[in-house]
Amino acid sequence: MSSERLIYLALGGAGEIGMNAYVYGYGVPGKERLILVDIGVTFPNMDSSPGVDLIYADIAWLEERRDRLEAIFITHAHEDHVGALGLAWQRLRAPVYARPFTALHACRKMEERGQDPAMITVVEPWPHRIEAGPFTVSFLPVSHSIPESSSMVIDTPAGRIVHTGDFKLDPTPLVGEPFDRALWEEVAKPGVKVLACDSTNVFSPHPGRSEATLGPAIRQLVERAPRMVVATTFASNIARVRTLAIAGREAGRSVCLMGRAMRRMIEAGVESGVLTDFPPTVPPEMAAGIPRENLMLVVTGSQGERRAASAQLSRGKYLGLELKEGDLFLFSSKTIPGNERDVLRIVNSFSEMGVDVVDDGADLYHVSGHANRPDLSTIHKLMAPQMVVPMHGEHRHLREHVKLAAENGLAAALAPNGTMLDLTGAVPVVAGHVETGRTYLDGKVQIGALDGVVRDRIRMALNGHVTVTLILDEDDTPLGEPWVELSGLPETVPGGAPLSGVLEQALERFLARADDRLLTDEDLLEKDLRILARRTTENEIGKRPEVTVVISRLS
Amino acid sequence: MSSERLIYLALGGAGEIGMNAYVYGYGVPGKERLILVDIGVTFPNMDSSPGVDLIYADIAWLEERRDRLEAIFITHAHEDHVGALGLAWQRLRAPVYARPFTALHACRKMEERGQDPAMITVVEPWPHRIEAGPFTVSFLPVSHSIPESSSMVIDTPAGRIVHTGDFKLDPTPLVGEPFDRALWEEVAKPGVKVLACDSTNVFSPHPGRSEATLGPAIRQLVERAPRMVVATTFASNIARVRTLAIAGREAGRSVCLMGRAMRRMIEAGVESGVLTDFPPTVPPEMAAGIPRENLMLVVTGSQGERRAASAQLSRGKYLGLELKEGDLFLFSSKTIPGNERDVLRIVNSFSEMGVDVVDDGADLYHVSGHANRPDLSTIHKLMAPQMVVPMHGEHRHLREHVKLAAENGLAAALAPNGTMLDLTGAVPVVAGHVETGRTYLDGKVQIGALDGVVRDRIRMALNGHVTVTLILDEDDTPLGEPWVELSGLPETVPGGAPLSGVLEQALERFLARADDRLLTDEDLLEKDLRILARRTTENEIGKRPEVTVVISRLS
Repeated sequence: MSSERLIYLALGGAGEIGMNAYVYGYGVPGKERLILVDIGVTFPNMDSSPGVDLIYADIAWLEERRDRLEAIFITHAHEDHVGALGLAWQRLRAPVYARPFTALHACRKMEERGQDPAMITVVEPWPHRIEAGPFTVSFLPVSHSIPESSSMVIDTPAGRIVHTGDFKLDPTPLVGEPFDRALWEEVAKPGVKVLACDSTNVFSPHPGRSEATLGPAIRQLVERAPRMVVATTFASNIARVRTLAIAGREAGRSVCLMGRAMRRMIEAGVESGVLTDFPPTVPPEMAAGIPRENLMLVVTGSQGERRAASAQLSRGKYLGLELKEGDLFLFSSKTIPGNERDVLRIVNSFSEMGVDVVDDGADLYHVSGHANRPDLSTIHKLMAPQMVVPMHGEHRHLREHVKLAAENGLAAALAPNGTMLDLTGAVPVVAGHVETGRTYLDGKVQIGALDGVVRDRIRMALNGHVTVTLILDEDDTPLGEPWVELSGLPETVPGGAPLSGVLEQALERFLARADDRLLTDEDLLEKDLRILARRTTENEIGKRPEVTVVISRLS
Repeated sequence: MSSERLIYLALGGAGEIGMNAYVYGYGVPGKERLILVDIGVTFPNMDSSPGVDLIYADIAWLEERRDRLEAIFITHAHEDHVGALGLAWQRLRAPVYARPFTALHACRKMEERGQDPAMITVVEPWPHRIEAGPFTVSFLPVSHSIPESSSMVIDTPAGRIVHTGDFKLDPTPLVGEPFDRALWEEVAKPGVKVLACDSTNVFSPHPGRSEATLGPAIRQLVERAPRMVVATTFASNIARVRTLAIAGREAGRSVCLMGRAMRRMIEAGVESGVLTDFPPTVPPEMAAGIPRENLMLVVTGSQGERRAASAQLSRGKYLGLELKEGDLFLFSSKTIPGNERDVLRIVNSFSEMGVDVVDDGADLYHVSGHANRPDLSTIHKLMAPQMVVPMHGEHRHLREHVKLAAENGLAAALAPNGTMLDLTGAVPVVAGHVETGRTYLDGKVQIGALDGVVRDRIRMALNGHVTVTLILDEDDTPLGEPWVELSGLPETVPGGAPLSGVLEQALERFLARADDRLLTDEDLLEKDLRILARRTTENEIGKRPEVTVVISRLS
């Protein structure tokens, strides 16, 4: 018994904000029974993952040990916590537990990837308990920017873990459960060994504000708007969508929700019972017939996503509706770092239409869903854990959260993805390192981030592509001339000659001098032609393209 | 005489922050004599211009009229104002005027593109006047984040134009000339017809702060740092580099400048006489020998540029120096929107090294070089122009600046790139629209942004590339089988078969059924094979690649 241990291992989420995947284990080293908390996605970008559809944590380590995996728990329905469930489940095949609203989304994630949604068990919150090998797990309601978020209370033979998931201390979140101090005190009472804690807002110095503080300012803004009002926020922030819709109704406007994700979220809210008092809305196909000064749209796309409703409206008519001079567009959201360019593109398009854009520059129209620095200290003190394990953050957030824990007199460990912690003793100890990384869903195929596929695409994006084809006859003699096709390269060199012609001449001159040894050595010839094509392109136009050489032999 | 007119036309800079290029003209419509103020670059990004080296305004309109171009004036030495001089000059061939420090950079821009730097005339500031056709132009010193910035005072038969260039109202900029109210009053006295005005910070509600306010906070930070200190800022912000260096010296540290751009800027400052009291520094090759607690580096790369010193240090040892646990890294800069991802990558790398990163979150270590909203109002009132033409801003900035001018009781016009204004009358009138756009420097070649070259690269980045080769014999019959090569695509389809093999089989089946008409029609066959390869790839792996088909005929 004394040789058993309690381990923690982030496969994703500790080193980025996104693709959360946390493993806990208990047992004899190397034979621990395991549970997984969350299995989310992160989103690709042109810089590092062009063309990729979704990204999630490399779960190879867990897949190899899936006979030891007892269960998967989903804390809440955000994409970075549940988005990869369908992709991962076919590799892990463990029972999944979630509360009703979250389970609705989890089921869809399973169905989208052809997996059986019946593998998901809908559970009641604390004090209901789920047995999973050596673990006993409860879903502890907590406030966040989506209903029914839960912290995991994980009891183990080594003590109690509280895994916060995403949370804030909001006494009035409007939709979903408020932060209930008494409940958390009850959880803390027997003593907490480990607090695995959200780090997102550790750099935000002021206490977080409640969702309920936004209503008056939003209402005032909508009331004063002379023409059409359009507001965007995160589709999953049901409380905010409701606040916006109520503001519209109270200003005497018909409210229309646009964007599939938002409509689906509201439906799921009603279906699961977390949303009981959403104001009436009109369907998009009716909205175009309503006088614009009586209309308010609540739309998807607060991050500038190109296919979402905000971006569609910024490009012109969408579902029969069009923004015009004097309309108001409200970002009831913040721009997630990295999305600035996409968001500003939309703002400038609206500016060209004469639309007045209001953002959250003055902190009036948005509050964060995560606990700020003072709120983290509040939880540290309330839980009084033996140790803190910062999670859900980039490296800088984790590091700062370790410092904050130290300020609060608590032991803490900086454990980014792949760092396995042994939590059995009085302080966290690094127990090893596991190779982690990212898995890309690329079309229908799952590939590794380092497989080279995306690297080749980035190279083509930076340098263009040249195809060289050459036919060799039965005597290994070039038949006709080599042929060059360009993709993503200028057609002419400075001076005006066609680049393909210049390359073909260089290749021809080279082949005229090539001896039999070279012409019969497939690999060497291919390599020489590739290098020559690249070097000539570089000399002529200053770019080093990717080159595909195809040599056909008639022999 | 009454038929002559004064026109304004932005070719770049009015619709983006970057690639400034403003044309003024005076004369009979269609025969106006022209001057160009500034010819700058903007920088490419992976989203919209992968692989491109530099971007500047499409100057085709001006090039077609270069016989009417009297002169080019450069307001200051920032890349977005002077960076394209060498590229554009070979197409425009007009005399260039700049003050000494600016001229040093302008000369280098000419030399870099093989142009004669003797085309640049170094000029004295106001009240010195340059005659350029119907225009008389003076360089009016103004404060900004680089020395020797100037507004242009442009006298025309229709009245006086004040073209602010980039500016702020800083009475103590430390390096370069302070904002001199008396001088501006002198300029305003005869009456100003047009104020063409910087719009960058129109959304910043508080009066701008002086460069001189930063010293104490920076000094305190450096003094308290226990180990090595590294600070980054914009290389061209000589005043800031000096403040940082002085802070290092005062804390008893040896100061080392790292990064070519920064060293060159300081040299230019000394050479041109604008910088007279820069503290002594040690060269990078000596820095590694100095105890780290006695060392302060001032480095390039505040925007996360991958080849600059900051990024190099974030990846490990650079020029013999390496950051370690407990070192301090200061961003004495703000992150320009769009660069967040690159900057945060560096911050997280430093976090992994245990380096404490300080940014300007608390407004202690950086001030902007542009006039904030109240400062713009100050200039509006001081100049009391007949009309305001907002420039140097994205569309949203220009639009807001027009509103601000209206608040201040001034006529104004929203004139983004390509909108020609007639400024002859009492209010600006739109006189026409000119096709504008962007020219890319791609390697050594200048291409149009809409030429399709970059579009093809983006498509390859998103979808990958397939090469199909086919040989037809003398009878137009396929010789052997079609051959497929993949770039940037997964090698196997779900199920495990090789994608290239699957494609080859599909192409082969198609060719087996192809009739003579198709096999002899080059274009149709190429098109059919391309469509089949794309559609099959889409069915198999869910991606629609770019396809190059090469058909070789032995006939």
